[in-house]
Amino acid sequence: MQSLIAHIQKHSPLTPDEAALFLVHTETRKYKSKSVLQHAGTVCTETYFITSGLVRSFYINDNIVEHILHFACEGWWISDMYSLFSGKPGDLFIETLEDTEVIVLSKAQQELLYQQLPQLERYFRILAENSLVAHQERLMDNMSRSAEERFEKFCKRYPSLIQRVPQKQIASYIGVTPEFFSKMKGKMLRK
Amino acid sequence: MQSLIAHIQKHSPLTPDEAALFLVHTETRKYKSKSVLQHAGTVCTETYFITSGLVRSFYINDNIVEHILHFACEGWWISDMYSLFSGKPGDLFIETLEDTEVIVLSKAQQELLYQQLPQLERYFRILAENSLVAHQERLMDNMSRSAEERFEKFCKRYPSLIQRVPQKQIASYIGVTPEFFSKMKGKMLRK
Repeated sequence: MQSLIAHIQKHSPLTPDEAALFLVHTETRKYKSKSVLQHAGTVCTETYFITSGLVRSFYINDNIVEHILHFACEGWWISDMYSLFSGKPGDLFIETLEDTEVIVLSKAQQELLYQQLPQLERYFRILAENSLVAHQERLMDNMSRSAEERFEKFCKRYPSLIQRVPQKQIASYIGVTPEFFSKMKGKMLRK
Repeated sequence: MQSLIAHIQKHSPLTPDEAALFLVHTETRKYKSKSVLQHAGTVCTETYFITSGLVRSFYINDNIVEHILHFACEGWWISDMYSLFSGKPGDLFIETLEDTEVIVLSKAQQELLYQQLPQLERYFRILAENSLVAHQERLMDNMSRSAEERFEKFCKRYPSLIQRVPQKQIASYIGVTPEFFSKMKGKMLRK
């Protein structure tokens, strides 16, 4: 709980009473590894803040190939934003990769909170903007950088994930096959 | 001016006085086609709302190849968000593709406005979230869809741009060479 309140207070002030009010609108849940929090084809109504553990979001394309969109570990939010904002069924699965504890904020509670604590608009605006910048950079990297360069950036940016995430899932995030990834890593180690 | 106020009011209420206050913090500028609003390597301090005309943002990779990140026409905002939010020099150029009129909101004025009209937090939060969803979809498309499918989606989503944007720039947005794009279009027309 405290990690989420501290995260909010980095961007937007909250008094102890306001923090308590915020938490009243949330729910804490524990999931075993390999639990599915959100299914493709259903409407996503919740956002998850990870307090411990590791989660991924992914989709399965027409050729039944999995593509990983995001990983999220302690201190990150994750959701299917398209589905959450549009109210339409989404394409993403959200699944735990480790035993995980999350704070759940439902869309309905979030809208209530915007009325009761308008300073949360600022917090979620800054979150969305930061996430936008990260997406933009990843998009530019996918368009113009080699798989090797993308892997190097991943290692630099998320050093803690390298040890926690299976290799084939890092390959999928970077956008290469597990075979290509394994060859590429071998070549990089021999350099 | 009115188009911007209407755009804000779609998401967040503004009284006539508040709308007037908002506009006091902005500036209107006209640019000829091929004008550069933002140079890579400099810090971006402004966001542009297009009232008429057409603008693109692009970057040039290490192999001196241009990649188009965004187009923006009437009713869209454009900026180098990484540079704007971080205060660091950006990688993007922003250039007009037609004679263009923009409403300029500087970062400094925007921060002042958040204090004077806190409901703008909501407006810019929703803008950032919508943009995030669009980026996420484009990222997923780049990872898992063919160039043909990406072009079809572009045509469906931005029918007005097809007539206005030179083909080689649409190719760059989709992530293919002009030669590949021209062959692909020929094949699609013969279908």
